[in-house]
Amino acid sequence: MFTFIENGSITSVKGIKATGIHSGLKRKRKDLALIFSDEPCSVAGTFTLNKVKAAPLLVSQELINKGGKVKAILINSGNANACTGDRGYADALKSQKYCAKKLGINQDEVVISSTGVIGEYMPMHILKTGIETIVNQLTDDGGIKAAKAIMTTDLIEKNFAVNVKLSSGEITIGGIAKGSGMIMPNMATMLSFITTDAKIETNLLKKFLLKTVQNSFNKISVDGDTSTNDMVVLIANGMSGIEIKESSKDAELFLEALQAITIEMAKMIVVDGEGASKLVTVAITGCNTDEDANTIAKTICNSPLVKTAIYGSDANWGRILSAAGRSGVDLDPSRVEIKFDDMLILGKNYQHSFDEEEATSVLSKDEITISVNLNAGKGKSTWWTCDFTEKYIEINASYRT
Amino acid sequence: MFTFIENGSITSVKGIKATGIHSGLKRKRKDLALIFSDEPCSVAGTFTLNKVKAAPLLVSQELINKGGKVKAILINSGNANACTGDRGYADALKSQKYCAKKLGINQDEVVISSTGVIGEYMPMHILKTGIETIVNQLTDDGGIKAAKAIMTTDLIEKNFAVNVKLSSGEITIGGIAKGSGMIMPNMATMLSFITTDAKIETNLLKKFLLKTVQNSFNKISVDGDTSTNDMVVLIANGMSGIEIKESSKDAELFLEALQAITIEMAKMIVVDGEGASKLVTVAITGCNTDEDANTIAKTICNSPLVKTAIYGSDANWGRILSAAGRSGVDLDPSRVEIKFDDMLILGKNYQHSFDEEEATSVLSKDEITISVNLNAGKGKSTWWTCDFTEKYIEINASYRT
Repeated sequence: MFTFIENGSITSVKGIKATGIHSGLKRKRKDLALIFSDEPCSVAGTFTLNKVKAAPLLVSQELINKGGKVKAILINSGNANACTGDRGYADALKSQKYCAKKLGINQDEVVISSTGVIGEYMPMHILKTGIETIVNQLTDDGGIKAAKAIMTTDLIEKNFAVNVKLSSGEITIGGIAKGSGMIMPNMATMLSFITTDAKIETNLLKKFLLKTVQNSFNKISVDGDTSTNDMVVLIANGMSGIEIKESSKDAELFLEALQAITIEMAKMIVVDGEGASKLVTVAITGCNTDEDANTIAKTICNSPLVKTAIYGSDANWGRILSAAGRSGVDLDPSRVEIKFDDMLILGKNYQHSFDEEEATSVLSKDEITISVNLNAGKGKSTWWTCDFTEKYIEINASYRT
Repeated sequence: MFTFIENGSITSVKGIKATGIHSGLKRKRKDLALIFSDEPCSVAGTFTLNKVKAAPLLVSQELINKGGKVKAILINSGNANACTGDRGYADALKSQKYCAKKLGINQDEVVISSTGVIGEYMPMHILKTGIETIVNQLTDDGGIKAAKAIMTTDLIEKNFAVNVKLSSGEITIGGIAKGSGMIMPNMATMLSFITTDAKIETNLLKKFLLKTVQNSFNKISVDGDTSTNDMVVLIANGMSGIEIKESSKDAELFLEALQAITIEMAKMIVVDGEGASKLVTVAITGCNTDEDANTIAKTICNSPLVKTAIYGSDANWGRILSAAGRSGVDLDPSRVEIKFDDMLILGKNYQHSFDEEEATSVLSKDEITISVNLNAGKGKSTWWTCDFTEKYIEINASYRT
């Protein structure tokens, strides 16, 4: 049993402080976030599969893989510190060390993360001054400020928290995320930081994270591009006093809640995708395998022709079927059924005698579910994407300059 | 030795007549093309890999696979006759039969092809009337009219012809093509019909076609989508009296000329890609294998972030490197060099001290070459793509309705 907390964030969790400030890496908006736990946390992370990895990502990946405990996460936006070579790597270590010093903790208790422009060296004097400022501004309700500070082209901050009732009491999970462009599975340009006051040992925490990321952040697509800096980090400080053991009923409940909060964050990333005007759930069923369903869902979610048709509220089922057809999955097109919400658009044997006006009205909504049933087996997969608008082009033709 | 013929087209080839008319499948523009050879032709074809295949494509694929000779190609635009089931297949056969009857030839001498909206039955009365009209309008210089009639969202017709000097005389190759959206390798939404008066036996013709398509139509991308109807058909009527034998010097010369004309058509499809404002050549070198280079080229050509940056004339090498990094190919980013035309943008170890203004001026041109050198091996591949503009969204959000 879990319930979403109104205006909840990472700081809804016991013993978690956070904040976000403007340090000067961006012109005006907040660009530096700090998350701090009163007690040491076990930590799990998933990282971009891009072969081009940013310096802070490499530092944090190494740190987290060691399996130790951490107390802080420092995140800056505005500069990705990616493709910056040895100097970038040294800068990343320096910022980690400086943050630790100012917090009075060990260097290996600080996870670091960056997002922003690729290929520029980090202006370390700005970052250092920012660190000096931010360590003194941590508060018990600063989660939303932190969420604002990690944004790049995002329009809205992404905060969620849930209370979870377990056998021996209540624990809380909170999360912040950023997304926008370059959103594609396998940790594709997005950051998310999740906190919990449950006590969970590192290996189990890792299992929880991998499993839930697989069905949330790894099943969204804005434009098929992936980035150099993406990571999801989950920390557990145990301050609720409640421990979750593997294969217990509580573990199931925790997983369910973690899945819910990661899905909400993933969907919100899509809703706030660059230029997006609609959230589209793509539910594929009736495939021979889940893997087939996943491949089809991914192809449909990345098809510019499908995404522009949805933007135009055009019931163009041909583009959906055609995207499924080019996914590489073997299928019999004459058996495929396509629905928009509950409305049958394409029946078996290419039947499509639907009411165009009604279909347009379904497609004009802010949230639409496209269901595709191959009628071949039991494999299924659900993804989320957004429509493709002129605004996406506008944003991305001018982002860097 | 070959030379492009000014205003050349399929009808520049001896014994080839063609034309294009408005039959009524589209509101105003030409929508029906016919290509006719005075003598029977050997024929080769390549077809979409989409699992959803249009009825006329299935009919023509079967016909061409039989290896017989053909005399005519009938192509309509405005209606794809795709996802139309048994009735669509029967309609395709009927149109083939009716065209053959009106031309006074056998049904299995007529290749048929369609492009346009998916999922609508072919209005057979319109098509039949169109066939009755078109068979009487074939002319020796109607290639350009035929090229116009196969267009969908294309803005310009695509015609080319080359004279090829062989050991025993001259032969001609002519071609028309259509493209626009849904352009992705492996015969992705595009049609091309190529004629030659060389005498070439079917198996050799097939080899020539496959080889040249691989390095032309299969290396272009507009939006990563592929279609149900795409095909390239090459017919050879032998009317020059000059035969080309396998492994001869003449075979090499012919292949070279065929490659040149298919590349020109492929590039023109990209230039005329939906909303495109720039032709971008993506030349990948220094990979471990050609296959690796191909994968990287394809990923860069399909990256909306790269394509929007080019549209914005933004020297955003980070997006190019990042696209290479997510292609799945193993690479050392610190060894990668990136050039825009001859201008070094990214050197080894992430050096990028280029002049931004100069880079912007290079990127502001209509034609740009992006070269990416991995400095790892000898593998290479060249692709062509276009930039991504608001116009693409506009066209595709409203195409069907």
